[in-house]
Amino acid sequence: MKKDVLIYDTTLRDGEQGEFVAYSLEDKVRIALRLDEFGVDYIEGGWPGSNPKAMHFFARMKTEKLKNARLAAFGSTRRKNVKASEDSQILTLIEAETPVVTIFGKTWDLHVREALRVSEQENLDMIGDSVSYLKSRGREVVYDAEHFFDGFKANPEYALKTLQAAADAGASCLCLCDTNGGTMPTEIPAILARVKAAVKTSIGIHTHNDAGMGVANTIVAVNEGAVHVQGTMNGYGERCGNADLIQVIPNLELKYRKRCLPDGKLGELTSLSHFIAEVANISPDPRQPYVGQTVFAHKGGIHVSAVRRNPITYEHIPPETVGNVRRVLVSELSGQSNVHSKSEELGIDLSTASDETKGVLKQIKEMESRGYQFEGAEASFELLLKKALGKHRSFFELKGFRVSTSKHGEEPCGAEAVVRLAVKGEDRHCVADGDGPVNALDRALRKALVEDYPELKQVRLTDFKVRVLNARSGTAAMVRVLIESSDGDKTWTTVGVSENIIEACWAALVDSIDYQLLRVEEEGAGSKPKTSKKSKSAV
Amino acid sequence: MKKDVLIYDTTLRDGEQGEFVAYSLEDKVRIALRLDEFGVDYIEGGWPGSNPKAMHFFARMKTEKLKNARLAAFGSTRRKNVKASEDSQILTLIEAETPVVTIFGKTWDLHVREALRVSEQENLDMIGDSVSYLKSRGREVVYDAEHFFDGFKANPEYALKTLQAAADAGASCLCLCDTNGGTMPTEIPAILARVKAAVKTSIGIHTHNDAGMGVANTIVAVNEGAVHVQGTMNGYGERCGNADLIQVIPNLELKYRKRCLPDGKLGELTSLSHFIAEVANISPDPRQPYVGQTVFAHKGGIHVSAVRRNPITYEHIPPETVGNVRRVLVSELSGQSNVHSKSEELGIDLSTASDETKGVLKQIKEMESRGYQFEGAEASFELLLKKALGKHRSFFELKGFRVSTSKHGEEPCGAEAVVRLAVKGEDRHCVADGDGPVNALDRALRKALVEDYPELKQVRLTDFKVRVLNARSGTAAMVRVLIESSDGDKTWTTVGVSENIIEACWAALVDSIDYQLLRVEEEGAGSKPKTSKKSKSAV
Repeated sequence: MKKDVLIYDTTLRDGEQGEFVAYSLEDKVRIALRLDEFGVDYIEGGWPGSNPKAMHFFARMKTEKLKNARLAAFGSTRRKNVKASEDSQILTLIEAETPVVTIFGKTWDLHVREALRVSEQENLDMIGDSVSYLKSRGREVVYDAEHFFDGFKANPEYALKTLQAAADAGASCLCLCDTNGGTMPTEIPAILARVKAAVKTSIGIHTHNDAGMGVANTIVAVNEGAVHVQGTMNGYGERCGNADLIQVIPNLELKYRKRCLPDGKLGELTSLSHFIAEVANISPDPRQPYVGQTVFAHKGGIHVSAVRRNPITYEHIPPETVGNVRRVLVSELSGQSNVHSKSEELGIDLSTASDETKGVLKQIKEMESRGYQFEGAEASFELLLKKALGKHRSFFELKGFRVSTSKHGEEPCGAEAVVRLAVKGEDRHCVADGDGPVNALDRALRKALVEDYPELKQVRLTDFKVRVLNARSGTAAMVRVLIESSDGDKTWTTVGVSENIIEACWAALVDSIDYQLLRVEEEGAGSKPKTSKKSKSAV
Repeated sequence: MKKDVLIYDTTLRDGEQGEFVAYSLEDKVRIALRLDEFGVDYIEGGWPGSNPKAMHFFARMKTEKLKNARLAAFGSTRRKNVKASEDSQILTLIEAETPVVTIFGKTWDLHVREALRVSEQENLDMIGDSVSYLKSRGREVVYDAEHFFDGFKANPEYALKTLQAAADAGASCLCLCDTNGGTMPTEIPAILARVKAAVKTSIGIHTHNDAGMGVANTIVAVNEGAVHVQGTMNGYGERCGNADLIQVIPNLELKYRKRCLPDGKLGELTSLSHFIAEVANISPDPRQPYVGQTVFAHKGGIHVSAVRRNPITYEHIPPETVGNVRRVLVSELSGQSNVHSKSEELGIDLSTASDETKGVLKQIKEMESRGYQFEGAEASFELLLKKALGKHRSFFELKGFRVSTSKHGEEPCGAEAVVRLAVKGEDRHCVADGDGPVNALDRALRKALVEDYPELKQVRLTDFKVRVLNARSGTAAMVRVLIESSDGDKTWTTVGVSENIIEACWAALVDSIDYQLLRVEEEGAGSKPKTSKKSKSAV
């Protein structure tokens, strides 16, 4: 298969400049292997001259075999007044023993004067010498023209000369960098035309997102003839980040019909994006184009019925193309078709039972008017459907609870909860403390149940969200609580609404436990002990 | 001042379609007033025909006076085979009594056939009749051409006919919508050229971000002659959201020199973005172009020294242009000028007191590292400044409190709080109940104080927001609580942070009371009895 565009991934180098990003050595190896598997063409592993950890990575990677990608070490042109062959930073690039070396050089005369403090000619020599030397040592050399667009706008003749110096010395690709991220997509075509007229070497593009144009500038450049794209997965990188390859790749493949991945790999886009986020320990962006959790979610009733009839009415691509899934949100704007689609998605057959559908719908409307919202609480919604179908049973009965929070002088608050339940005909009366009232209540509840239901041992409260719904005049405000739980394997969210925040939490906690018990019962398996992967969240 | 581009904000309508977005009525009013203050030209308040809450908003807004913006009600063209003047949905648009009405109609022949199920001519009639009727009732009519780009690509002649129908009927603006968000910026120029050749009415643009092109498509369209831009603040909206006006506006003003705001307002962009996020109760995106917390942060050593010498070397704009700040190190120097300008705004003189400034700054940083944020809590910030200047005194001392919530069987929860204070040397020990623990605590606290400080009689807790701040692995989550209080005349917001939600509420309640007592003392006036305009909020 011939690719139209080569993907050069710098998640491990430029991506690590991001404020919240830091990888361990093993993280970097895992990411590199996954990127190779996905089918990118280049993996930039780090800057050995600036970061000693990068050298460990290149050493470690010698024990791994890549199937698709070529490994690149990143660095700069030689210092002034030194031979490239004697420049220590250039020599570390050789020591990395990668097939590819990428070096950046100065395009912008302002930087030549103010940052490098050398003559314009010396800068050209620095570029040419460095590329030639690396070529002579058998490397493929990618040349990154730093600040290309700003430099071109300030002094186009000089900017083109720097490219020519790299091209003449044997660079395989001249990559135009929008280092400060301030270029607009409408500026790109005229500049690319001038570059293509001046040099015959392959053109690459490397953009940053400071004006929100990282992805747009990249695809406009490809549309104007760039054949090499640099970026990072999820757009991680300094400031606003780099061009997000998770958006660039599907735009090129689906909108421009430019091949940049091996066959069948585009369907792995969503899982790749989540994998990278997981390893970088950054929450995935639910609104990230193509791969986010909400991006094929439909809320308005008109949209939902149209999408059921013909998905292209409100979806620009089929979600499965990029490994994502359609979701129908159940909300105050929802009509009957939302309930149908949702239950289909959950594998509950409502199609023949129109009275039941109406019953569920009526109950949803009634609950929504009290402030419930199910779009973020699919487990509570599933319980509701099961109740309507008589497929739900209670696992315990609440006799009562009491939660106290107290403070004495300047000491921190303490919280304690007492819970009384009837479980399988027996009285259970338990007390627990916690960092806050919800944590205490959660612990007391599970303490009271775990003897009878050992499958609850693994369940942990992993996230907690609160929203206060404003009162209409004269009435009390309602509080909506979303609770996310996990058994270390699966994660589910439940909702509770009340005037009283503690009661709202209680309702969500009970749904969470019911959901898990029902699921384990249905799977027939009983409990499969597992250690929780996530830490508890104390509220 | 003549604007080049009119900004049409739909944060309150299309923005509310976003999965995690839901505003209360008072939230909507606060947002509308802030948008007006910021200087947008249109505020779309909701779709009264689809969501009854929207009508309450329009009714409520009749008591407010807008300085810059015109209010718009949103709806669709009339149903088939009905006169516009007899279509119930159209009539609700009239009942909203807004100066502007925006209606969407079908452009795409596929939708005319499959969604509307009417003839192509009937669709044209529906558009024309609806616009004419609304015009005849004295409204400015904006016409949103739904799915314009997909429709144009499928059947350009018909797509243009739908625009012509709206133009002929008197629409003031034809807004081209990329409803599914799949259009590429390189497609826009040729399509806009065809539209401009066919109709002479003003052109608007409304894009979605499904391919990451929401902002790019908008600015490309403006570059091709669109003069009306629809979008939402922070890009909130269904699926991947709408064009983010927080990015569109600075791109147009700074990169294209197109005026879209009143003089001096661009500098409020960052605080506006954070305000909207705070009210919507959505965490601000730290990487959001222009306004995010990391977007002028410099991590790499080379960048830092170059930026110190000359900021344009690594910054595409000066951060203060959009009200953001440069951050150089992890232990940032960010605040000093903020603290200064904030204290000026509050009438507190810090200018001669640089040690005190440093003290305040240090304390703010320490509190921010624990999760405090003063963006939405100016009363707490003012107290902090006053404490630093020795202009604050304590009005009471906490000896202790206890809050209990209990539930018995199916009965609703009850909450009770006991508070022990020392006030003017006397012991005060009071108990109160409430609809929830915060309400009970608030009532017990005021009960214990009101005899000594009768000016607290009028104070009511009017809003309450909770945000759970993510736990780092192995530690407990922090909870941030914002409390809004009112004495029926003035409204103020305070903040508290703790692992324990009740303790966080306590801190915010104490700040609220201190703030009011200090203010009354400074005004010298003592209490001026007044009835509360707002209802109490029970949590």
